[in-house]
Amino acid sequence: MRFQLAYVGIQVRDIERSLAFYRDILGMRIVRRARVPETKGEWVELRSPDSRLLLELNWYPEGSKFFAGPYRRGDALDHIAFYCEDVEGAYRELLAKGVRSAQAPFMEGGSLLAFVRDPDGLWIELNGPAASS
Amino acid sequence: MRFQLAYVGIQVRDIERSLAFYRDILGMRIVRRARVPETKGEWVELRSPDSRLLLELNWYPEGSKFFAGPYRRGDALDHIAFYCEDVEGAYRELLAKGVRSAQAPFMEGGSLLAFVRDPDGLWIELNGPAASS
Repeated sequence: MRFQLAYVGIQVRDIERSLAFYRDILGMRIVRRARVPETKGEWVELRSPDSRLLLELNWYPEGSKFFAGPYRRGDALDHIAFYCEDVEGAYRELLAKGVRSAQAPFMEGGSLLAFVRDPDGLWIELNGPAASS
Repeated sequence: MRFQLAYVGIQVRDIERSLAFYRDILGMRIVRRARVPETKGEWVELRSPDSRLLLELNWYPEGSKFFAGPYRRGDALDHIAFYCEDVEGAYRELLAKGVRSAQAPFMEGGSLLAFVRDPDGLWIELNGPAASS
């Protein structure tokens, strides 16, 4: 199975305040922006001009199970995403290798997603197309 | 001033354990690896085949001022790095715009580095060539 690093997502406490920094001061451009009904939150994908690297800002409202409260040093890492063609197969393969599950495969916005944990416990997203039936 | 997103660095608790996951299971390749005398730690830059995105694993030994102890959810974000040609100028420009400093410009391994804080407080690295004299 091939995994391709896609982006790193950080959690921000105030999305407009963070856009004022990453977009307006550091000059990044918005690639995509979406609200997430499941979390009642929102994400924004940004990139620097001339760069294909993506940074994702994730925001969760108070009351969301992901809401983190005030920032503590370093705690803004939300997840690291890898593209893979076959999310179901990749998820099974990783669990067979002893990797811990965080969330079984599920559909979101036309993509098939699943989450496992890296050795420290942080969430690794597997992101791919919907399975063909 | 132009800033170009370079990579995201995460903090890991055990670098060999993390390499067994990111390199051996997810198939990433080591681009560069170095020990850092200043922190007594080590970092490893990884990328997926066919991807220019970099992920940096940072490890700090117990006793280092950056040592974080056991993982708490989400707290593995070490820093986000942006390349810029003129680190001194970029650092001054950001502070003039109200951005908070984390560490004034300093040389490390032939590069000029400086750190500022994003609105939540996380460390943003400015990374560029040594200033010409």
